[in-house]
Amino acid sequence: MTDVLTTVLDGRWAGLKQRLRGRMAATKPADPVGLDIESHRAQVQQQLHELAEAGYSEVSDDVGGSVISFQMLGYGDLSLMVKAGVQWGLFGGAVQMLGTGRHHERYLPDIVSLELPGCFAMTETGHGSDVQHLRTTATYDNGHFIVDTPDLSARKDYIGNAARDGRMAVVFAQLITGGRDYGVHAFLVPIRDGQGRPMAGVRIEDCGPKAGLNGVDNGRLWFDQVRVPRENLLNRYGDVAEDGTYSSPIESDSRRFFTMLGTLVRGRISVAGGAGSATQRALTIAVRRAETRRQFRRPGGDEEVVLLDYLAHQRKLLPALATTYALHFAQEELVGMLHEVQSAQVPDERAQRQLESRAAGIKAVATWHATSTIQTAREACGGSGYLAENILPGLKADTDVFTTFEGDNTVLLQLVAKGLLTDYRDNFADLSPLATARLVAEQLMGAVLERLPARQLVESSDLRDRSWHRQLFQDREEHVLAGLARRLRAAASASADPFDVFNDAQDHVLRAGRVHIDRLVLDAFVNGIDRSPDKDLLEQVCDLYVLSTVEADRAWFLEHGRLSPARAKKVVVEVNTLGKQLRPHATTLVNAFAIPEQYLP
Amino acid sequence: MTDVLTTVLDGRWAGLKQRLRGRMAATKPADPVGLDIESHRAQVQQQLHELAEAGYSEVSDDVGGSVISFQMLGYGDLSLMVKAGVQWGLFGGAVQMLGTGRHHERYLPDIVSLELPGCFAMTETGHGSDVQHLRTTATYDNGHFIVDTPDLSARKDYIGNAARDGRMAVVFAQLITGGRDYGVHAFLVPIRDGQGRPMAGVRIEDCGPKAGLNGVDNGRLWFDQVRVPRENLLNRYGDVAEDGTYSSPIESDSRRFFTMLGTLVRGRISVAGGAGSATQRALTIAVRRAETRRQFRRPGGDEEVVLLDYLAHQRKLLPALATTYALHFAQEELVGMLHEVQSAQVPDERAQRQLESRAAGIKAVATWHATSTIQTAREACGGSGYLAENILPGLKADTDVFTTFEGDNTVLLQLVAKGLLTDYRDNFADLSPLATARLVAEQLMGAVLERLPARQLVESSDLRDRSWHRQLFQDREEHVLAGLARRLRAAASASADPFDVFNDAQDHVLRAGRVHIDRLVLDAFVNGIDRSPDKDLLEQVCDLYVLSTVEADRAWFLEHGRLSPARAKKVVVEVNTLGKQLRPHATTLVNAFAIPEQYLP
Repeated sequence: MTDVLTTVLDGRWAGLKQRLRGRMAATKPADPVGLDIESHRAQVQQQLHELAEAGYSEVSDDVGGSVISFQMLGYGDLSLMVKAGVQWGLFGGAVQMLGTGRHHERYLPDIVSLELPGCFAMTETGHGSDVQHLRTTATYDNGHFIVDTPDLSARKDYIGNAARDGRMAVVFAQLITGGRDYGVHAFLVPIRDGQGRPMAGVRIEDCGPKAGLNGVDNGRLWFDQVRVPRENLLNRYGDVAEDGTYSSPIESDSRRFFTMLGTLVRGRISVAGGAGSATQRALTIAVRRAETRRQFRRPGGDEEVVLLDYLAHQRKLLPALATTYALHFAQEELVGMLHEVQSAQVPDERAQRQLESRAAGIKAVATWHATSTIQTAREACGGSGYLAENILPGLKADTDVFTTFEGDNTVLLQLVAKGLLTDYRDNFADLSPLATARLVAEQLMGAVLERLPARQLVESSDLRDRSWHRQLFQDREEHVLAGLARRLRAAASASADPFDVFNDAQDHVLRAGRVHIDRLVLDAFVNGIDRSPDKDLLEQVCDLYVLSTVEADRAWFLEHGRLSPARAKKVVVEVNTLGKQLRPHATTLVNAFAIPEQYLP
Repeated sequence: MTDVLTTVLDGRWAGLKQRLRGRMAATKPADPVGLDIESHRAQVQQQLHELAEAGYSEVSDDVGGSVISFQMLGYGDLSLMVKAGVQWGLFGGAVQMLGTGRHHERYLPDIVSLELPGCFAMTETGHGSDVQHLRTTATYDNGHFIVDTPDLSARKDYIGNAARDGRMAVVFAQLITGGRDYGVHAFLVPIRDGQGRPMAGVRIEDCGPKAGLNGVDNGRLWFDQVRVPRENLLNRYGDVAEDGTYSSPIESDSRRFFTMLGTLVRGRISVAGGAGSATQRALTIAVRRAETRRQFRRPGGDEEVVLLDYLAHQRKLLPALATTYALHFAQEELVGMLHEVQSAQVPDERAQRQLESRAAGIKAVATWHATSTIQTAREACGGSGYLAENILPGLKADTDVFTTFEGDNTVLLQLVAKGLLTDYRDNFADLSPLATARLVAEQLMGAVLERLPARQLVESSDLRDRSWHRQLFQDREEHVLAGLARRLRAAASASADPFDVFNDAQDHVLRAGRVHIDRLVLDAFVNGIDRSPDKDLLEQVCDLYVLSTVEADRAWFLEHGRLSPARAKKVVVEVNTLGKQLRPHATTLVNAFAIPEQYLP
């Protein structure tokens, strides 16, 4: 049964996964526990070179496969995963996606081989989520761009690979030519020479110790009027001619900006995948311990009870395990979508936007799930879970920033909701969560409302009726979205301040994004079961995913007449029943993740 | 206003707090960021000596004051707090509470001065929560006890002060004399000589790196037939005469055991207090950042919005802040109870048991609150919150084990529920969560049910009506407990397996403990407001505490007809409204914690 499940979980890239597992199983993982920061960084850089030599690289024609490779790194030291992501995913990916032939030929081979270690210098001290308003400038001047950090808040911050190893950076800066600002573009800027010394005009500072990921050398960069040749502009979406004339295939500055950002969606999807791997590893550790650790005797007996026999322990681990399965299938589907979109000969704008929205939402939900599940796993392992040798402390510390980087989760869920509200119009991708309220008010509500007919929810007598589950999730999504649209329209038409309109509904906005993703995740789970030769166990896991999700949000279902009080109570009972039913299969379910044993304590 | 609030928060030990704050403000705190483990341990041990010289000691006649001193250490490096807690609270406290005159005279002065660093060797690898079934033995033999570790699972584990500094340990072991086991007792066992070498027969191992608290040297201890003099038994509750005869003022082994454990309640209360201090520090950091950090422009303006103006950010921080206030008042009351109970001339058994129950519950609720709030604070600070220099990573890592040590929270909440069910009878303190079901079935249900008349809940039109709040909490507590009692009785009378009976209801049991504590916390908040000269702001904070608590549990209120759907929705809206109202006071509210500025980034 374990093997059958593994094959289903592995999905489309099963062959690649098997090969990578074989390689991981054949090598001893380098252990970061107890290393000081400099040793940890050196070890990770060494491992990165080994990966490069072994042919690992995210800058690959197999787009989906590159994400899968990244996810497999998520079973090991997450510093290595992130460092690989910085070098090949972010730095290499930006050169690949935003550059053109001249950049590809000149730089990609050295990036792939790690001859040219690089950084992705987007975030500034003053602007992280609001990338559009970055303040670093790149001013065209006579065949060169002058890259400059105007003040402290515009320094590049938290930049991976900057403090120790990076030699070049893709710097995101406001492109200014002929006295006009054309918005954020990406520039290749050398930051260190061959001897590792900072280039003239470049100041580099170490971000110092972090909660986790201390094998990654995050740093800060200042540019003091640094001149780079005109050709260092990554010019796929905008270029400056020798005479300073700006040209772009996309006229609107804003739309161009979001198109450029959109090409970088792989990073977000990779983080969601890495979070999934870390979560699976934490649950494998916690379930195995729960199967062996005993505490307190049975009444009237000398035998002590195994932790996983306790209802409270089942409740801690099994709904989290079910959700991990659900998110795994959603991630699998997302990687497939990414692969199709980025492998397509003809760009499909609508598919691209769906991908971006889904990537944002799954990233938020998967990383929050990782944070809470790894926390729970640690607590479920008690004092032993607090010892570094048992891996959970490292997992907790390393994954903690996943909810923040590659997009703050709270911002991302709003992006999802906005996409739903604005019906995939041009302004969809505008990251500002505030601009929407007016749009919504002015033009789009009618269309949204028409798409959402009121629907009568039928109560199935069977709590495990999948069609009822799907209807429940879909109905919730539609109701929340329609309510939000009405609310924003009503408030906006009362000519209130647009910030207040949107802000007063922010909890509602976040909920709209969240329940939309819940529905997509359930759909993905159902699709996953469809392709399984043995559906029985997965159906139960899916039941637990659905009912524990409903349980957690049953206040909403009660408030909106979707569940009667009696039925809501039955949902709670059914979650207990399912936990008991799945309890004998818990080991099978975690073993099916097939994490190489060397990566477990 | 800040000063008024500080005085109210400081409560009964305000003078002591002010003195300690003055001392903290006059010294530069030693910074643990970036230290390797050995340097951190050395630094903490050095600080501990400075504390000893400055007259800090938890082994004090001012019982409450000693907990307050411990709490104040919670604003600094938590390794120092825990190390002080191990030396003076646990080690010193055990000698004081379980020993008699001969131990006090001989050891306490050296413990206070740190001349004799020591350990509290209770937990074993195989038994943490189930202390009653520890397997280390102390067998009486001709004027000596032979302390022995029978196997791996009986080694002492996670023992603070063991890996590096401890010279003596209070070892909890099964006392055996004349071939009979009298249950767990505490013995003074030297573990290192004056040169720091392990004593003959004592094996010591380092637990190695941990998630946090790396300034504390946790270790493992094995005893191979170690002989200690008969006088090393801490003999307040049980003694062995020269001829091997056992005697005790408490006949029942079980009752004696729980009486002994009960005297150690201070440790649990201290952890709850330390968790509170860490939470306050995290919120101070996060609120200050939320007041200065801006992101995204207002629609139609160039001004960027301060984070705390966002509803979502208010929702992250302000209910957590309100709950932190609530728990602070509950802790203040709990410390007062401890002080009364342990300062009393005549022991009051009922008060002692109430204290133990409340300590268990507040510890569980306060440490879970710390875990989630510090997590939220980190996320609310984004990338900056991930940098060690901004303190939150250390707070997160250090406090993570608070939910585990001094009693696993899940076990503690069951202890609370059992106390409620068994109506303060002798068996109350039996830690095994399983033994209760039978008891409940056999004898106690009638009494419990009679104490809980059905009550008609009146809906107040005013969501901020405090008497309605109190009624709501009280009614919930009574209903949950009565339902649990009925359920256990019904199941038990059907002669089901007692383990199954209790286990099937474990979520119900935990809820009973939880809602009981919620009610006590609210009562404590109300009492705190009563003694404030300026009640207005605190009343609003209390409203937010109550309504965000109700909001989080509104599914229950809906399922049990305590809230109508319409009213439940109004609760959600009111939480938003309260957040907006309190938002301008957020800085005042965190400043009132009066954490010395050196302890903030």
